[in-house]
Amino acid sequence: MNSEIELIRSELDTVCPRITEEAVAGCCRELGAAARVFVAGAGRSGFMASAFAMRLVHLGYAVHVVGEATAPAFAEGDVLVGVSGSGNTSGTVRAAGEARRARGRVVAVTTDVDSELAAAADAVLLVPAATKNRAAGEAATAQPLSSLFDQAVHLALDAVCLRLAAEAGIDNAAARGAHVKTE
Amino acid sequence: MNSEIELIRSELDTVCPRITEEAVAGCCRELGAAARVFVAGAGRSGFMASAFAMRLVHLGYAVHVVGEATAPAFAEGDVLVGVSGSGNTSGTVRAAGEARRARGRVVAVTTDVDSELAAAADAVLLVPAATKNRAAGEAATAQPLSSLFDQAVHLALDAVCLRLAAEAGIDNAAARGAHVKTE
Amino acid sequence: MNSEIELIRSELDTVCPRITEEAVAGCCRELGAAARVFVAGAGRSGFMASAFAMRLVHLGYAVHVVGEATAPAFAEGDVLVGVSGSGNTSGTVRAAGEARRARGRVVAVTTDVDSELAAAADAVLLVPAATKNRAAGEAATAQPLSSLFDQAVHLALDAVCLRLAAEAGIDNAAARGAHVKTE
Amino acid sequence: MNSEIELIRSELDTVCPRITEEAVAGCCRELGAAARVFVAGAGRSGFMASAFAMRLVHLGYAVHVVGEATAPAFAEGDVLVGVSGSGNTSGTVRAAGEARRARGRVVAVTTDVDSELAAAADAVLLVPAATKNRAAGEAATAQPLSSLFDQAVHLALDAVCLRLAAEAGIDNAAARGAHVKTE
Repeated sequence: MNSEIELIRSELDTVCPRITEEAVAGCCRELGAAARVFVAGAGRSGFMASAFAMRLVHLGYAVHVVGEATAPAFAEGDVLVGVSGSGNTSGTVRAAGEARRARGRVVAVTTDVDSELAAAADAVLLVPAATKNRAAGEAATAQPLSSLFDQAVHLALDAVCLRLAAEAGIDNAAARGAHVKTE
Repeated sequence: MNSEIELIRSELDTVCPRITEEAVAGCCRELGAAARVFVAGAGRSGFMASAFAMRLVHLGYAVHVVGEATAPAFAEGDVLVGVSGSGNTSGTVRAAGEARRARGRVVAVTTDVDSELAAAADAVLLVPAATKNRAAGEAATAQPLSSLFDQAVHLALDAVCLRLAAEAGIDNAAARGAHVKTE
Repeated sequence: MNSEIELIRSELDTVCPRITEEAVAGCCRELGAAARVFVAGAGRSGFMASAFAMRLVHLGYAVHVVGEATAPAFAEGDVLVGVSGSGNTSGTVRAAGEARRARGRVVAVTTDVDSELAAAADAVLLVPAATKNRAAGEAATAQPLSSLFDQAVHLALDAVCLRLAAEAGIDNAAARGAHVKTE
Repeated sequence: MNSEIELIRSELDTVCPRITEEAVAGCCRELGAAARVFVAGAGRSGFMASAFAMRLVHLGYAVHVVGEATAPAFAEGDVLVGVSGSGNTSGTVRAAGEARRARGRVVAVTTDVDSELAAAADAVLLVPAATKNRAAGEAATAQPLSSLFDQAVHLALDAVCLRLAAEAGIDNAAARGAHVKTE
């Protein structure tokens, strides 16, 4: 095995076991009750949010990425999943505020339960990894910026997808039917 | 720990150890010699490619995502990193052909060394995970579609970043200086 | 007035009068009967397609941009609007083929009624402007590449929106209600 | 001619003549002196900004779209072109602030010389069209939301491109050489 991958996986060993059953279940409950799902995130958090959104489409959800051309305004019954390591990214926090004003619900995916994003959220999927700020108490990492957070978020949101797929009885063949043809 | 994350991590245990030192080193060598780096990928592979591109910017590379508004035409000396589980995604294969016609070089990130993308590549970063096609010989997975591939690609490309950062002596503070301000 | 804008508007004088009432009406008929609208385009044609998609959302349509994270697979009853000056852009032509295979319908927005895209279409919104190929018979232009086509497409697709809004009785206040809050 | 296009063009007659020679020239001067050009805009203003960015690439400029994966942090010598009808769109205003803090320069493309964006700008390309706010003094329009602004911005920014191409002696063949191959 490549040694850098080994190191990354050992860093994930310090984070993943601290993502609780209840946090994943809480996120799934919010999504299960959603009329539509919106996701928001800046930078690499945004790419993790978009990858999550795409898989939710394959599982049959009506999904929008905040900032995409085709995203409508929030409405009551919608759920926003906001991804931000620090929990203070301005565009993501602003989206959470908009969702709440429209009587939607908010799931925060963040390292910080005391952040603005978490404060605006109905449920928090706590991912206790390092952010680019290297705040006190964050997990140690040799990787630059928020890479460890991005990786742990990727696994956590795919865990949500795996549970939702199992609950709905969607196997690979069913998901392929909803997948855009790219080949 | 949430049980779905545990399952995902056990699936990664079957893939990550098979990503070789030489495959990661070969990708780093190509990038180290690149005038500019281009990345290409469709769907979730595209989001992994974009997240990789963004981190390379933080490490000081000149980077473009194929299809972005600001991506110029390929030129000699450029390196394209194409990400495709099957290695046959049409847009990604076409980008590899364009890169080669312009006398650029190509790194294929794929599960299949016999694919069109790998055939067009100067170096292959083999990530032996499952694709949505569930072809014979692919790693077993309970996850829908290419999720296992996406996760392993994420870790493999971040391993490349970690090695490039170490080689160039770029620590977190230096990477933060190149990071767009989002807060 | 700035002299370059004057020149651009005089070039539009040679194109816009040749966009027929029937072509705009035909596009509106297809959209009016659509379950969902998809748009596709590469490069600047893609940005015109995305701007059109966004306005259709404000008019109450369910809309997707081909290639966006949240676009599902085509299904029967969907309408694809493909924008390509030459009518031969590979990704756009491929999307039209996918739409047809799913028993969707296709509107081609192009300069060339004999192109692959037009051949795959149920309706053609002919925009007889210059493309970057400067093929025989194209409108004369002093502007680089497909700029004249992009401008004429922008006006033609906004004409479609204006007609759809009027037909549905949607005024500015109603459209604002559907608009994402950005301020 | 289609009657809606005719109406749109008559609305442009009330806006385009009021875009001054000096405003276009001032924008060109800023771009001519730029190390790199950044563009920013939300919604349809963002698509106009991206289309402009893409054409600038064809004219040989180093260009980034704020929010794109590959956009680096602002630096001294960079010029940001911010597009906002109201001039108060939060993300665009924030980008202008970031550009100034980095000692870059800012060009505002807006309807409102008294807006936050214009206040932060070194040069203003005033496009006196209607915004979605229908503020007092705005041009009259039958079109929904900011469509008239978007159209006028499109022509104004293409006027900038036409002038820059002429000044640099870049004809269609030269621009094609810098164009990504899409067919």
